[in-house]
Amino acid sequence: MPSPHYRIFFVHFGMNIKEIQDKLAKFAEERDWDQFHSPKNLVMALTSEVGELNELFQWLTEEQSSIKDDDSPKVDEIGYEIADIFIYLLRLADKLDIDIEVAVREKIEINAKKYPVDLAKGNSKKYNELDK
Amino acid sequence: MPSPHYRIFFVHFGMNIKEIQDKLAKFAEERDWDQFHSPKNLVMALTSEVGELNELFQWLTEEQSSIKDDDSPKVDEIGYEIADIFIYLLRLADKLDIDIEVAVREKIEINAKKYPVDLAKGNSKKYNELDK
Amino acid sequence: MPSPHYRIFFVHFGMNIKEIQDKLAKFAEERDWDQFHSPKNLVMALTSEVGELNELFQWLTEEQSSIKDDDSPKVDEIGYEIADIFIYLLRLADKLDIDIEVAVREKIEINAKKYPVDLAKGNSKKYNELDK
Amino acid sequence: MPSPHYRIFFVHFGMNIKEIQDKLAKFAEERDWDQFHSPKNLVMALTSEVGELNELFQWLTEEQSSIKDDDSPKVDEIGYEIADIFIYLLRLADKLDIDIEVAVREKIEINAKKYPVDLAKGNSKKYNELDK
Repeated sequence: MPSPHYRIFFVHFGMNIKEIQDKLAKFAEERDWDQFHSPKNLVMALTSEVGELNELFQWLTEEQSSIKDDDSPKVDEIGYEIADIFIYLLRLADKLDIDIEVAVREKIEINAKKYPVDLAKGNSKKYNELDK
Repeated sequence: MPSPHYRIFFVHFGMNIKEIQDKLAKFAEERDWDQFHSPKNLVMALTSEVGELNELFQWLTEEQSSIKDDDSPKVDEIGYEIADIFIYLLRLADKLDIDIEVAVREKIEINAKKYPVDLAKGNSKKYNELDK
Repeated sequence: MPSPHYRIFFVHFGMNIKEIQDKLAKFAEERDWDQFHSPKNLVMALTSEVGELNELFQWLTEEQSSIKDDDSPKVDEIGYEIADIFIYLLRLADKLDIDIEVAVREKIEINAKKYPVDLAKGNSKKYNELDK
Repeated sequence: MPSPHYRIFFVHFGMNIKEIQDKLAKFAEERDWDQFHSPKNLVMALTSEVGELNELFQWLTEEQSSIKDDDSPKVDEIGYEIADIFIYLLRLADKLDIDIEVAVREKIEINAKKYPVDLAKGNSKKYNELDK
């Protein structure tokens, strides 16, 4: 008689936002940094990282900005700036009990309504300037 | 007679970053928006959303900024601004083939070295100003 | 007989924006930097300086942020960040033939209409949220 | 007989920064807004205006961004955004007793040393990356 088989699938889909948020919360707690991490301050910290991201792109042409070059130190720098912004964004959402995934999915649906394909196609107008 | 099958699925769904990136790519493609989505332009679009996030916090005290109130329209607005920033961040990373999760995990490790608990505890100094 | 007297008053009121703009234009020209100074790029450069200004304030309480201390190195740093933003703002306006003074004076008048004293007094609501 | 008096007034009116700062201070005082205008908050308000400036440029090519067209409503909008940033910058400096003109003139000299013509010519490298 064949033995039963136990197939255990351990499927990891995607990034575990909550796990990273917990890691960041622990990081701050160990350093007694919660006193600094008010949502208002986190917004400013995020803004300062966004400034650094701008610095990396400010003198590049659009074409230069599009080059993917794994060996370029600049791509690493960009990756870390994106990470910094991401980290503050997760921390801010955590502090305010905002579920990022829910917000993102809702926002994509809102955008789909604001920018219907037939009106938005091929132009960069803001939704309130689209010819309806 | 077939043996019973015990399939144990241990499915962890975190946020599927790749799936959202694909959704956003399709969204842009349908609207012929790739012509506008150079990394440089995406950084500016992200910056403009960060400006809107600042607007929501600019006159709040730190204490007021910390209030979690599900019924407040402001919390919804903040959630959508976070989503907007998140969306542009994912799109930017996608355009440059940057794996956000890898970058975030590496950056957290880098930060742990830059800010050792014993030196960073209870102060908000920048790593290069910590007394070593 | 008393000699006639020639009184020459050389009164300099205020900052000569045009003179500074010309100085900045010459600075860029000597370095062959006009190729980088498109208005779009100048906006990003300005944004990057604004990020640095945010960094100086991000962990301060509002009260700490209000301290004027001439001997503090931080006040010098803030001064130079303000100068950096100011410089890019002047350069951007120059590139687009925008008269900053005219724009500022018009904007103050517009704001006076948007925020009438009796409605705006003591609150920080945006003009479109004022109870009219 | 009194000698003729030749009084030659050579009056140069640049922008009177102090006069505008006083106007803005009065504007805030009349509306009881000083409670909101901590330097920290003013930095966030300035940032939010910088976000709006980014929005106006985000999808433009560099070439499109360089067009000066007095009849374009966009140029007016850009002018007012520059004015908004300028206004918050003046207010911030006023609150911290920072003399913008002095800071700007000093910063231009610092930049001249950081970016000597022979090293900086024709490239957009940051001063600490210039080949010396």
